[in-house]
Amino acid sequence: MKIGFIGLGVMGAPMVGHLLAAGHELHTSINRSPPPAELISKGLLVEGSPCEVAERCEAVVLMLPATGDVERVCFGTDGLAAGLKSGSLVIDMSSIDPSATADFASRIGELGCAYLDAPVSGGEVGAKAATLSIMVGGPAEAFERALPLFEAMGENLTHVGDQNGSGQTCKISNQIIVALTIEAVGEALTLASRSGCDPAKVRKALLGGFASSRILEVHGERMISRSFAPGFRIALHSKDLDLALKAAASVGVSLPSTALCQQLFNSNRAANEWNEDHSAVVKSLERLAGATAF
Amino acid sequence: MKIGFIGLGVMGAPMVGHLLAAGHELHTSINRSPPPAELISKGLLVEGSPCEVAERCEAVVLMLPATGDVERVCFGTDGLAAGLKSGSLVIDMSSIDPSATADFASRIGELGCAYLDAPVSGGEVGAKAATLSIMVGGPAEAFERALPLFEAMGENLTHVGDQNGSGQTCKISNQIIVALTIEAVGEALTLASRSGCDPAKVRKALLGGFASSRILEVHGERMISRSFAPGFRIALHSKDLDLALKAAASVGVSLPSTALCQQLFNSNRAANEWNEDHSAVVKSLERLAGATAF
Repeated sequence: MKIGFIGLGVMGAPMVGHLLAAGHELHTSINRSPPPAELISKGLLVEGSPCEVAERCEAVVLMLPATGDVERVCFGTDGLAAGLKSGSLVIDMSSIDPSATADFASRIGELGCAYLDAPVSGGEVGAKAATLSIMVGGPAEAFERALPLFEAMGENLTHVGDQNGSGQTCKISNQIIVALTIEAVGEALTLASRSGCDPAKVRKALLGGFASSRILEVHGERMISRSFAPGFRIALHSKDLDLALKAAASVGVSLPSTALCQQLFNSNRAANEWNEDHSAVVKSLERLAGATAF
Repeated sequence: MKIGFIGLGVMGAPMVGHLLAAGHELHTSINRSPPPAELISKGLLVEGSPCEVAERCEAVVLMLPATGDVERVCFGTDGLAAGLKSGSLVIDMSSIDPSATADFASRIGELGCAYLDAPVSGGEVGAKAATLSIMVGGPAEAFERALPLFEAMGENLTHVGDQNGSGQTCKISNQIIVALTIEAVGEALTLASRSGCDPAKVRKALLGGFASSRILEVHGERMISRSFAPGFRIALHSKDLDLALKAAASVGVSLPSTALCQQLFNSNRAANEWNEDHSAVVKSLERLAGATAF
């Protein structure tokens, strides 16, 4: 398939590598930073703008930092919308606002094209290993067309719903649970440690029971060993909780613990821990306790 | 071994069954409700008071509802303390206050006896199947002596620390993580459902990734199927969060999400959901959102 791919960052670059390896023809657009030489050598073609990419491709994948970036690439000057042929497919794999997604999908739909929101979890490791979880919102028919692409990049592929934005909502749900579970482990281990217990023994005792999770295993270990190199940066997770709180406001739901966790992330920001791993939220709990607990 | 066992409730009764099956001689004390006939038929002996139980046994196990019950059985009229022989072992498997535990251990220690706090997780199912996780605080030598008893009742046995109260603190850590993870799943699924997503598809998409946990699996499913029969009652989990918040206050730690979750449990209490499964905390989130989301 002739595929456009806009956004060759730490996630996008390895994803393009997998699509090239699967035999697809890949196009990207020129950018401030040049595309990785390795991808060019494997056949990645570079066009002058997203518009030109859209003109040459049947499907265009986006993997961009934020809602505004997706809007600009789709609808800005020389954007995708100016070049999309009727029947083309736009697949936004960025993690962005679900309600903006519904709007973008509707505007792309007016051009006779289908739109899928297909955010991922699994991070850089999952992108490199082609083991991403992909959560997809949009028409079932478009999901079927995109499936070979998803299969080249991920493993756990879910069509969440026909409604555009469902994939983004699912991703936000994921990020809520991950953030709040990390914070929960932080509260538990801080109390244990400050009470004179060895947090490593507590973590071990709790693995296997109902408190068990990959978070307790991985992020609990990071808290204990004080290994706060990312991983997943608080700056990014905070952006995701912003999306969660905005979505909650728009559908009339109250997310008290998500709001609280966001405030703890704000404390990390104030303490210059914005680019540390999200497990460093435990440091905000330690600040509340007046000192380092571990 | 000659073992006393005080507290033959839903947890204690099957635990006594396992100790009898392992060949021990079991004594209990007379109570308002008579001991299960099945245990009597298997050899359980009934004494007139905890004091008499202590006089006849090398080790006494307690499995009682709350801190005050443990204090009364140990130090009240005709309590254990009046009958314990020097060198005996008191093993408190109730889930109670860690700092009261340290006090009880010290007073038992003055009688020339050893004390272990050994709360469990795994609930009625784990008690019946002898698969309880047991988290033990107290001297290593006493832990070694008690090990055959623990092995008859549980599987995941951890000596958390030599300091009495370590087991209780570990159990509290467990209960914090369980409560807060359930609440996190509740926030995520309420947002997803209210945003028009099928929460069952969201749960399934999230299993396997970093949001995955036994809580998402079991309690997420209960929320989706609206199955709020316990399980573990909110009344009991709220008692555990009380212990967590009291412990936090006493060691100078701040547990903001634990405090918030306790407030949501209060809303369950107000709505007569006090004896429903702890997954019913999602109903408090739904009240905040003004209606049932699922």
